[in-house]
Amino acid sequence: MNTFLWPVQVYYEDTDSGGVVYYANYLKFMERARTEWLRSLGFEQDELIEKNSVIFAVRSVQVDYLAPARFNDCLMVSAKPVEQGRVSLVFEQIIKRKNEDKPLCQGQIKIVSLNSQSFKPCSLPAPLAECINIGE
Amino acid sequence: MNTFLWPVQVYYEDTDSGGVVYYANYLKFMERARTEWLRSLGFEQDELIEKNSVIFAVRSVQVDYLAPARFNDCLMVSAKPVEQGRVSLVFEQIIKRKNEDKPLCQGQIKIVSLNSQSFKPCSLPAPLAECINIGE
Amino acid sequence: MNTFLWPVQVYYEDTDSGGVVYYANYLKFMERARTEWLRSLGFEQDELIEKNSVIFAVRSVQVDYLAPARFNDCLMVSAKPVEQGRVSLVFEQIIKRKNEDKPLCQGQIKIVSLNSQSFKPCSLPAPLAECINIGE
Amino acid sequence: MNTFLWPVQVYYEDTDSGGVVYYANYLKFMERARTEWLRSLGFEQDELIEKNSVIFAVRSVQVDYLAPARFNDCLMVSAKPVEQGRVSLVFEQIIKRKNEDKPLCQGQIKIVSLNSQSFKPCSLPAPLAECINIGE
Repeated sequence: MNTFLWPVQVYYEDTDSGGVVYYANYLKFMERARTEWLRSLGFEQDELIEKNSVIFAVRSVQVDYLAPARFNDCLMVSAKPVEQGRVSLVFEQIIKRKNEDKPLCQGQIKIVSLNSQSFKPCSLPAPLAECINIGE
Repeated sequence: MNTFLWPVQVYYEDTDSGGVVYYANYLKFMERARTEWLRSLGFEQDELIEKNSVIFAVRSVQVDYLAPARFNDCLMVSAKPVEQGRVSLVFEQIIKRKNEDKPLCQGQIKIVSLNSQSFKPCSLPAPLAECINIGE
Repeated sequence: MNTFLWPVQVYYEDTDSGGVVYYANYLKFMERARTEWLRSLGFEQDELIEKNSVIFAVRSVQVDYLAPARFNDCLMVSAKPVEQGRVSLVFEQIIKRKNEDKPLCQGQIKIVSLNSQSFKPCSLPAPLAECINIGE
Repeated sequence: MNTFLWPVQVYYEDTDSGGVVYYANYLKFMERARTEWLRSLGFEQDELIEKNSVIFAVRSVQVDYLAPARFNDCLMVSAKPVEQGRVSLVFEQIIKRKNEDKPLCQGQIKIVSLNSQSFKPCSLPAPLAECINIGE
C-alpha cells in the first residue's frame, strides 16, 4: 500500500506563544490525514458508523518531535498502515514541510475498531481489511 | 442574581504565535464559567441530558476583545444571566486578570434549551428557570 | 469585491459530545477563510509581520448559530469585507454546507491592523487597502 | 520526588462527537499538570523565559489510551519526573477519574530545555535540576 499524503496549512489556531505548532495539534493533523486516506479508499466514517456500527478509536500514539512547524507553513502529512490485526491498524505518519525532505514530526498511531454501541473491539470492516491487506 | 466568577489559568494550549490568547479560546473560557455557574446552582449538564433530555446550545455571541490575555495569566471569568426567556438565557460575561479591574474581553452569549433527541427548542428546566427568575 | 469561498472539512477535532461542531470552532473556520482570502490577494501574513511589522487582531465578533454542522460535513466558508476603515476591516462571513443554500452560521468580524512590536493600531498596509478599496 | 496531582474538569470543548475526550486533548491535560507541578516547585515559565531565556519543548510522547473520559468527568492528572538528563526530563503521567483507581490514559513525555532565542538545547535551569535531583 502506497504512502498517502495530505496537505495541511498551519493557521494561528494551530500555534502557541512559543511561535510554533502546539504539540497536541500534530495529532489533529495526523488524524486528518488518516481520515482522508480512508476517504481516498472509498470509506466515509459517518457511513461506517451508521451502516456498520463501527467507529475507530486511538489505542496508542508514539510521536517524536524533531523540528518545529511554524505559522503559515504548508505541511504534508503522510499516513501509511504498517501493521494490520483483526481489530487494529498501526499507521506510520510523517509530517514534513511541502517540498522539504526533513521530517518535523513522526509517529506510530495504533487504532482499533470498536462497535459504536457497545464500544467493544470488533473486526475491521471486511472491505476495508481486504483493501489494506498487509497482514499482521 | 449575583455575578458568578470562575478562575481560568492560561496555558500554552490557549495561546497563539501572536503571543496572546487565540480569539476563539475566550469562548471556551466563557463556557467553562457558564458550566460552573450552573453547577454552583446544583445542575449538572450530564444529568440534565439523561433525566430531562435537555441540552443547551449557543444561539449567538457578541464579543469585544479589548486587550490581550497572555501565557501564564490567571484570569477571572464572570457569568451573569441578564435576560431570561421561556427557552433562552442571555449571559453577560467579562474576562479580567485576577486582581485587575480592566476588562480584557466581554461578551453577550445567548443560549437556548433544546430537546436532546429532537434538537427542537424546549422550555428551560423548571427548577433552573425558578432559580434564575430574572424575568424577560 | 467578490465573496471569497473556502472549503472546510469537519473532522472529529472540530466536534463535541453534543454531536455537532463546537461553537468556538466556527471562529477557527472563519479565520481560515480570512487568511486564504488574504493569500488569494497576494498577501502572506508572515511576510506582513516581517516586512511591514503589521499583524491583524480581532476586535469584535458577532456570530449567529442557525443550524449545526456535523462530523464529516464539507462546509463552504465565505469572507467578504463590508466596511473598511483606516486601521480596521469588517468581514461578513457565512458558513454553509457545500451545495446547500441554508446558512448554518453567520458573523460579522472586525479586525484591526496593529504594529507587531508596539501592538498599537496602525494603518492597513497601503497595497492591501488599495486592493480592497470599498471605502468606509 | 512525589507524584504531583492536578484536577481537570472535562468540558464540551474537550470532547468529540464520539462522546468522549478527543485523543489530542489528553496531551493538553498532561501539559497543564506539568505546568502546575513546575509552579508548585516555585518556577513560573514566563519568568524562566524572561530571566533565564529557557523554554521547554516536548521531544517525544508515548501515550496509551486505556478507557475513555467523558463530558463532565472530573479527572486527576499526575506528573512525576522519572528520568533527568542535563537538558531533558522524562515524565510519567497517568490520568484517572477522581476517586477511581483505573487509569484512563497514561504516558511518558520527554521534554527538553531550549534557549528561547536560539532554540538550541541548553541545561535545565540549575535550581530546577537541583530541586528534582533524581539523576539519570
